[in-house]
Amino acid sequence: MTRTKPIATIDPEAKGVTLINIYEVATDNQTKLVKLLAEGTEKVMRTMRGFVSVSIHQSLDGTRVANYAQWESKEDFDRMLKSPEAQAQMKQFAALAKSVSPVLYRVSSVHRG
Amino acid sequence: MTRTKPIATIDPEAKGVTLINIYEVATDNQTKLVKLLAEGTEKVMRTMRGFVSVSIHQSLDGTRVANYAQWESKEDFDRMLKSPEAQAQMKQFAALAKSVSPVLYRVSSVHRG
Repeated sequence: MTRTKPIATIDPEAKGVTLINIYEVATDNQTKLVKLLAEGTEKVMRTMRGFVSVSIHQSLDGTRVANYAQWESKEDFDRMLKSPEAQAQMKQFAALAKSVSPVLYRVSSVHRG
Repeated sequence: MTRTKPIATIDPEAKGVTLINIYEVATDNQTKLVKLLAEGTEKVMRTMRGFVSVSIHQSLDGTRVANYAQWESKEDFDRMLKSPEAQAQMKQFAALAKSVSPVLYRVSSVHRG
């Protein structure tokens, strides 16, 4: 899939919330989960009100997948959580993982080199 | 401290590595750790070869601090880990936490709204 601006920004002035969700996986499932998260994000989450970005990460050791997701507000994020479509996606993601640790954050500061 | 460009970017084409380090904290220590991480990053990590960015996050529920740190290469990251100055900083960070979960990742994909 071609995208013109596939870059997310992290800005301490932004008003939104950030979900950092760490999936612990069997190494056999890491690639599958990365693919499923990308597809589910494009199909469902990306179309929802308040969606800013999702950045999907795979750990070098094969045991983790991390989803760094930005929403415009906690209200937008909570609305997504209640959507049956999003719930069905999240169930599929979780089925490929040993454990899921979703936590909501705000950006405190950014430091650049 | 004033910075002209306090924004980090997440780019799937970038060659570097990303550390996502989740600190579990007593709620009393969350603000202290956020401050110490910012100071330590400015004083020590930011000066090191291969440093790209550090973005510090505090969880809405008060129980977590997340450090999203980008380095140009795994070699740069490993060199930082071996530095006595960085080790002293990381020891101070860990002393404010109940647990520390550092994991190294590569960015698989970025999806924007």
